[in-house]
Amino acid sequence: MPGSNLMHMAASWMNYLKQHHERFLNELVDYLRIPSVSAQSAHKKDVERCADWLVNHCRNMGLKTRLIRTQGHPIVLARTPRKKGSVKPHFMVYGHYDVQPPEPFDLWTSPPFEPRMEGDHLFARGSTDNKGQHFVHLKAVEAYLKTGQELPCEITFLIEGEEEVGSESLTPALKKLKPELDVAAVVVSDNGMPSLKHPALTYGLRGVTACEVTLVGPNRDLHSGIYGGAVDNPAMVLCQMLAQLRDSQGRVKVPGFYDDVQALSLLERSQARKFPLKDEAMARSLGVRALFGEKGYLTVERRAARPTLEINGLTSGYQGEGSKTIIPSKASAKITCRLVPSQDPRKILRLLKRHLQSICPKTVRLHFEAGHSGKAYVTAPDGPYAKAAMEALEVAFGKEPILMREGGSIPIVTEFKEVLGADTLLLGLGLPDDNAHSPNEKMSLTAFTKGMHMSAALWQNLAAHS
Amino acid sequence: MPGSNLMHMAASWMNYLKQHHERFLNELVDYLRIPSVSAQSAHKKDVERCADWLVNHCRNMGLKTRLIRTQGHPIVLARTPRKKGSVKPHFMVYGHYDVQPPEPFDLWTSPPFEPRMEGDHLFARGSTDNKGQHFVHLKAVEAYLKTGQELPCEITFLIEGEEEVGSESLTPALKKLKPELDVAAVVVSDNGMPSLKHPALTYGLRGVTACEVTLVGPNRDLHSGIYGGAVDNPAMVLCQMLAQLRDSQGRVKVPGFYDDVQALSLLERSQARKFPLKDEAMARSLGVRALFGEKGYLTVERRAARPTLEINGLTSGYQGEGSKTIIPSKASAKITCRLVPSQDPRKILRLLKRHLQSICPKTVRLHFEAGHSGKAYVTAPDGPYAKAAMEALEVAFGKEPILMREGGSIPIVTEFKEVLGADTLLLGLGLPDDNAHSPNEKMSLTAFTKGMHMSAALWQNLAAHS
Repeated sequence: MPGSNLMHMAASWMNYLKQHHERFLNELVDYLRIPSVSAQSAHKKDVERCADWLVNHCRNMGLKTRLIRTQGHPIVLARTPRKKGSVKPHFMVYGHYDVQPPEPFDLWTSPPFEPRMEGDHLFARGSTDNKGQHFVHLKAVEAYLKTGQELPCEITFLIEGEEEVGSESLTPALKKLKPELDVAAVVVSDNGMPSLKHPALTYGLRGVTACEVTLVGPNRDLHSGIYGGAVDNPAMVLCQMLAQLRDSQGRVKVPGFYDDVQALSLLERSQARKFPLKDEAMARSLGVRALFGEKGYLTVERRAARPTLEINGLTSGYQGEGSKTIIPSKASAKITCRLVPSQDPRKILRLLKRHLQSICPKTVRLHFEAGHSGKAYVTAPDGPYAKAAMEALEVAFGKEPILMREGGSIPIVTEFKEVLGADTLLLGLGLPDDNAHSPNEKMSLTAFTKGMHMSAALWQNLAAHS
Repeated sequence: MPGSNLMHMAASWMNYLKQHHERFLNELVDYLRIPSVSAQSAHKKDVERCADWLVNHCRNMGLKTRLIRTQGHPIVLARTPRKKGSVKPHFMVYGHYDVQPPEPFDLWTSPPFEPRMEGDHLFARGSTDNKGQHFVHLKAVEAYLKTGQELPCEITFLIEGEEEVGSESLTPALKKLKPELDVAAVVVSDNGMPSLKHPALTYGLRGVTACEVTLVGPNRDLHSGIYGGAVDNPAMVLCQMLAQLRDSQGRVKVPGFYDDVQALSLLERSQARKFPLKDEAMARSLGVRALFGEKGYLTVERRAARPTLEINGLTSGYQGEGSKTIIPSKASAKITCRLVPSQDPRKILRLLKRHLQSICPKTVRLHFEAGHSGKAYVTAPDGPYAKAAMEALEVAFGKEPILMREGGSIPIVTEFKEVLGADTLLLGLGLPDDNAHSPNEKMSLTAFTKGMHMSAALWQNLAAHS
């Protein structure tokens, strides 16, 4: 497609998006007024009403829309109209119309479901997470549909209503809808970017694996006077075993733990250096004197692209006030590992279990219980879709975007890969101070505006790179 | 005193004790029928009634008796009658007339306050702890008083009613009564012996010191995905610090910890070898595959005559079901050390605190809270009173007695030393299966009978060794 044509088209949606900006905001405000709190049964009807609102909205935009009933809250499925015989690449936009519970109400400056604009901010529950973020994609597609410009791809919106309660109905629905979800990639804006000056494509997420370790010593709590010195102490043994799992720099000491870890590429390392994270500011905001971690890696690399082993909880013996002179009968720890691509969660659990068994003294018995697991996710940071997304970000934000990985896990992304065989482009429009899941949630109006531009450009770029 | 006289006297009390044995048992049964449960306000009148019963009983025996009112339950003070001008050594017998709550009732074979004899056992709440045990001393003294034989010493019985609830009124009372409690030693039968074949004098108790260690990391629990690898984990740091406090054999690694520990004497080590404790049986009863502890010491030495460091409790992060992927904001441990004579509890806490500070990384902040402390107690195992007691045990039980130390702490013994300046002879008549503090508490009738003989002989021996 010649450059001049593209420029012309861009001018056309830019115009539409500009002209209708106020209406878009009013529509988003209407959407945000609906308290679609999926976790609270008192809001069940509001959740239904929200899905219906969205169905109508999509239909009015010109999308072929239907409501998919599930065991839980319904899913809204809306697809761009197809021309007979036309063969275009197909992409999916994922989002969710349900929101977190708004409590505690008294910490909100204005009521959570009465959207309020102040400066560059639109305050409301659900503004950044996630109504505002998927709304930009809807409006960008509307700009194509309403200006009569041909979309270079087909797009299906899948907007679910259970993201905040575990997305239980999503996988069965994906499996059922698979024939019509023959998508080349999924676009998700449900996360963040470091700042408005640093638009970002998230191309990797860590995996996770969980377990609980319990050491059992004597068959009851023992009097530490009568038995202390004669019977081993499971709490001490647990500490001595766990202490061996990680060194003082955060490097995991479980044999084989790093075997499948891939080294970061030069591209990845150079991108990580662009991430605007100040260690001092982060330490100050968390109230710690110093950050921490493996030598040779930046903080942003350690927390997103390197695996970890964390103790999430410790329990043993007496936990009340004052003291109780006992040798506890047992001691337990909850452990999770964050994993990086190519590490197999089940293998990691096996290695951990085997290592714990090998260092466990015969004075206690070891119980090892495996918990949930999820693989890490990564798309090629220099693949064609990643490039397409980076270009769209740069066009919209006027800043060189960064490639980043996030340390957390987003299980649905793995589902898209496993069920639909599709990679996901994470194009987060949230800012670090947007208070997702907290009182005074907001969305940046600049992110909203630039997000629509980014989305409009994205479909051209994705099609061009297909 | 010529041997023939002593033999004659012995024959005389033996005769009295034999002749009145059934009455003694009936009296003890009456005493045991009174549910003097000091912890339960519903039994307040029973506790009073029990004290009154004891006052009357002592008076009828010929003791000069009075009830000492306290802030809590009264103390019974009963002294042998004094002859003008006679100067004899003065000893005190300590005991307590209050008993543990009897619950759970359904685990008792017969009702706790309806004493039942079966075989060699007298079942009732308070039988071994402690009514039966101090009753033997009362009856031995009665044998002197009622047969007109002159006691070679003066004896004051101090029987309190708050031992099972912390003996709070005891120290103030001791301070007030100090002028008339000018005793050379205190005799206490409120503990145990290994078996009827192994009568024992307990000459040492361990001390104790307690503290709580808290490590504070970030100012809130953090998402382990977003921050794992960038922020240290207080639970892991706690494990790594605590792991360094003790080696895998139980030897404490706090610098200076053993500086003041006295080596066991040859006498003590030879006595410890006589203690009838089978490691295998103990391990089996506790449900552990192996006992544990410092190399070079017998189990009985490790648990009674060597200092220890125990973790009594661990608390950090998430303790509920399943997993929660957090880096906990803080982690804490309750720690107690059992101490041996010459170790100063305050000094040990200082050493522990300093060591923890020295190994604490700068990624967390350390809070150290000192708890209660009590010094270890020991009397010379080869001193004159110890010899007197050993001889009395041998005469009564017909077995060579053993000298032993106990691993627990009995705070009142330290009070006797500090307030009255008197050492304590611990002549326990309880057996390991007597179920003190448990359902089906009992006392051995053999221990009761031989205990009376032991006590009668003891006063002769103590006076002879004064």
